[in-house]
Amino acid sequence: MRRFFPILDWSRTYSRDTATSDLVAALIVTIMLIPQSLAYALLAGLPAEVGLYASILPLVVYAVFGTSRTLAVGPVAVASLMTAAAVGKLAAQGTPEYYGAAIALAFLSGLMLAGMGLLRLGFIANFLSHPVISGFVTASGLIIAAGQIPHLLGIRASGETLFELLHKISNNISDINSFTTVLGMAAVGFLFWSRKYLKGWLLARHVSPTRANVLTRSAPVAAVIVTTLLTWAFGLNAMGVAIVGDVPRGLPTPTLPPLDLALWSQIAVPALLIAIVGYVETISVAQTLAAKRRQRIDPNQELVALGACNIGSALSGGFPVTGGFSRSVVNFDAGAQTPAAGAFTAIGMALATLFLTPLLFFLPKATLAATIILAVLTLVDFGAVRRTFAYSRKDGAAMMTTILVTLALGVESGILAGVALSLLLHLYRTSRPHVAIVGQVPGTEHFRNIDRHAVITAPDVLTIRVDESLYFPNARFLEDFIQENVAASSAIRHLVLMCPAVNEVDSSALESLEAINQMLLASGVTLHLSEVKGPVMDRLRPSPFIADLSGRVFLTQYDAMAHLAPELTARTLAAGRRDRVRSI
Amino acid sequence: MRRFFPILDWSRTYSRDTATSDLVAALIVTIMLIPQSLAYALLAGLPAEVGLYASILPLVVYAVFGTSRTLAVGPVAVASLMTAAAVGKLAAQGTPEYYGAAIALAFLSGLMLAGMGLLRLGFIANFLSHPVISGFVTASGLIIAAGQIPHLLGIRASGETLFELLHKISNNISDINSFTTVLGMAAVGFLFWSRKYLKGWLLARHVSPTRANVLTRSAPVAAVIVTTLLTWAFGLNAMGVAIVGDVPRGLPTPTLPPLDLALWSQIAVPALLIAIVGYVETISVAQTLAAKRRQRIDPNQELVALGACNIGSALSGGFPVTGGFSRSVVNFDAGAQTPAAGAFTAIGMALATLFLTPLLFFLPKATLAATIILAVLTLVDFGAVRRTFAYSRKDGAAMMTTILVTLALGVESGILAGVALSLLLHLYRTSRPHVAIVGQVPGTEHFRNIDRHAVITAPDVLTIRVDESLYFPNARFLEDFIQENVAASSAIRHLVLMCPAVNEVDSSALESLEAINQMLLASGVTLHLSEVKGPVMDRLRPSPFIADLSGRVFLTQYDAMAHLAPELTARTLAAGRRDRVRSI
Repeated sequence: MRRFFPILDWSRTYSRDTATSDLVAALIVTIMLIPQSLAYALLAGLPAEVGLYASILPLVVYAVFGTSRTLAVGPVAVASLMTAAAVGKLAAQGTPEYYGAAIALAFLSGLMLAGMGLLRLGFIANFLSHPVISGFVTASGLIIAAGQIPHLLGIRASGETLFELLHKISNNISDINSFTTVLGMAAVGFLFWSRKYLKGWLLARHVSPTRANVLTRSAPVAAVIVTTLLTWAFGLNAMGVAIVGDVPRGLPTPTLPPLDLALWSQIAVPALLIAIVGYVETISVAQTLAAKRRQRIDPNQELVALGACNIGSALSGGFPVTGGFSRSVVNFDAGAQTPAAGAFTAIGMALATLFLTPLLFFLPKATLAATIILAVLTLVDFGAVRRTFAYSRKDGAAMMTTILVTLALGVESGILAGVALSLLLHLYRTSRPHVAIVGQVPGTEHFRNIDRHAVITAPDVLTIRVDESLYFPNARFLEDFIQENVAASSAIRHLVLMCPAVNEVDSSALESLEAINQMLLASGVTLHLSEVKGPVMDRLRPSPFIADLSGRVFLTQYDAMAHLAPELTARTLAAGRRDRVRSI
Repeated sequence: MRRFFPILDWSRTYSRDTATSDLVAALIVTIMLIPQSLAYALLAGLPAEVGLYASILPLVVYAVFGTSRTLAVGPVAVASLMTAAAVGKLAAQGTPEYYGAAIALAFLSGLMLAGMGLLRLGFIANFLSHPVISGFVTASGLIIAAGQIPHLLGIRASGETLFELLHKISNNISDINSFTTVLGMAAVGFLFWSRKYLKGWLLARHVSPTRANVLTRSAPVAAVIVTTLLTWAFGLNAMGVAIVGDVPRGLPTPTLPPLDLALWSQIAVPALLIAIVGYVETISVAQTLAAKRRQRIDPNQELVALGACNIGSALSGGFPVTGGFSRSVVNFDAGAQTPAAGAFTAIGMALATLFLTPLLFFLPKATLAATIILAVLTLVDFGAVRRTFAYSRKDGAAMMTTILVTLALGVESGILAGVALSLLLHLYRTSRPHVAIVGQVPGTEHFRNIDRHAVITAPDVLTIRVDESLYFPNARFLEDFIQENVAASSAIRHLVLMCPAVNEVDSSALESLEAINQMLLASGVTLHLSEVKGPVMDRLRPSPFIADLSGRVFLTQYDAMAHLAPELTARTLAAGRRDRVRSI
């Protein structure tokens, strides 16, 4: 019970002190979340209030199901961009169909996450290698930033790829609105300055570190207030400055996602991608933060929790949510002790939805664009490309490909190309396990790789040691390897497969071993096994492979050689005793 | 040069004797191939002559590029069914669009195969585990056989899934044509009898074994001749017996596949599936046969060859071809020595196309259906399901799922579900490498798994041995494992990662190690490495991970413990010397 409802765990010892810490953290996160939630809703092509809705129920749900004490869920930049890309194909922005599809996307990706969690399929996230996810996030950050430029300049330009965006921006650059541009650039400048220097500036003026922190984090809210007041006071909206306008007041009402199977099948792939990308981001930040306090995260329960959050978001008219990186760090630094901090943040957001929305009427979209740009530029990490290339050219190539495909063809193609590349690299590696031809070390009963040690081999016996479990990705490799080596020498009469590192033989490998046995039989070579592990042998014993095996199963490789080439083996054991090499 | 044109290899030593052997084999294969090629074309929903076209140029192309001496390429049952399934979605049978799409499918799948071969991507075939391919072939065989029943009974019923087919057959069963049924059943009975008993019957009548073989294999041709004559003589076609009708006479003319990008993107997935399934079948039979004569197959060159065959098939108006299992065995048994046998078969098929087509006018479709049923029933192997289940329930479940999905939803869904399942099983396995907590064996400098050996551990040092390379599928597992074990004990001050079996650390694992280092640092635990292999250390040394590592890199695990817990380690080494356990 407690496994599925971690709230039962931490709520038992919930104290007044913990509540105070959680409330302070919730206040800071709420201040940060109000402009972000509006901005990310616009980024996803949705009305601003949808961002507020996605920041209420999901946070309460996470407090019930989540195992991280400090993760802050809600709308995030990359998932919002992926939502816009997925839904944009199906309907035009501003239509009820568009909004419905976004809700369905949250619902379906929530179902997938929860299902993966209940089936304990968290390992699916391993589809995404680190270079791929990191390249994808960098490219997404660039696309998002470029997509905000039109809002900063007051021009119209939209697109799914970086090149499309830049092309449209340069086409429409003459429509630039100077009021919007001044306002937008000022906001960007102020936010950039406050992130870099405000804290130092405050500290130099003897403001306490805690207060300096809170003030620094309130900079986006300050930008929102100031630009809203300016717009209202000077009527800038009449001079072409785009404003958020009428945001419906009041809490979200229960919503059912559209039950349209055709729609669901169209969004299945994007929903899965959003689910996996969101999960990878969530689990990384949750684990990093939990470790700092020696707390435990249950990866499968996190899937359930994140799934429930998304279902909750959909049922309350929101769009896909995940655990945000910077927001969680802020929550942690602000002293959040339990997921109750998230529930308190939800209350803050609910209050904002109830009372603040009329005040958002004159909020310029350019200010929100500035907030987004500052937020996503932390995602862009070209240094990672350089570091990855320096470490491994293969991984660097995978990363570059993901970046380029994402920039040129959009987020979905980008992440799919990345997944495909990761899998290819992985399959390539596992399809070629380490296999060594071995011989006897003189003076010992040990057998070592002939390429690395001075060892003795019998001309008519070929011994192959496989340093990997035998299973379908490498089954064919062994067939090829043996065929090649047996075809290379007509003297071979016996082949010994030395299996000290084989932890598993699956059905494919079993068929492969049968094929190898038949193929060797046909070419007059006897197949033997040696040093097969106990559990593997227990499985193999009743199989037809062992019944049909042309040779024998030896307990040790020395036994095998003592049987197949007794004289040479005994001589090697005796002769080398004097100048014995150290066995490794 | 010779790598890409194996013909340059074997043609140099081509002799009159080899030519005789090849000619005899070619004659037998031609006799077998004429009815099969017609039947498989009809199975693919194409005009009968397309089967003949697919049996001419591809065979010549394989003689130039193939590395197997005895593989017989041409139309096969499963690829024909997959073609019908893929093309049936895009156009109606009998239209030029349908034929064009089939040609495009052969062309695209040929391009993919050749591309995979040139890029040495043969390992992609590892996507398909043996239980999946075997289950898929069994299910395909059942669907094909069920799809022929209407032809045997002279009723109309078509469908992509077994259930759809059986449903339509039972609906239309009243339209049954008695002439067709008698003819069809007689053909099935004769073919079944000849396969089972004809050879024994002939041998008992003192026919020489070679002649008995040839006669047995000619049974389908005999059925074709007899039923054609009967239909012609009694005018059965006027009584409702469906006949092949007018087959255009003459060699195929050069054809260009339709250059329609929308079409190509629609058939991309089926083309890839046909390519991979065909390649797996081809390479299996080629390798089995080559091994019998200790010959070599080059798997990547086989991809190029099979790709060239399919491109050749498309350019001469044919449909997808692969290396057929039974046909190759016949070719081998009949004594084929070189791929020239294939070229001779092509000449035989060309002659048949030039001169025999008028004779095929009265050939009943029911006879061809009987040929197909007998051919595919060898594909159906329920014993394999039982055997696989007995060996491994996991693999058995994958096989059953593939069979059921193929039967219920069709070939494409079936093979895709199979691939997905294979990958899931594989990822599941690799995402959890074998990891052991180790301690010192008393009286030795050895360290072993605490679960299996009586070993001594220091309370403040946790040593984890990873028995697998560190790369992205298992990177997260290690983080989880370490987090869990460190969170479990607050006494731990040092964590040693013992890496004697780590052959590779990829970028994802490097990030993971950095995260582990940071997370341990945050919780006051120092991270050390021991027994890192030379090449792995060479890569790690310049990385930021080693620069930031909170602890040290020790050459041996004993060094690490001697440094971190000197007294305990020395005491364990001394104390246990007397009752020393044997280290394994």
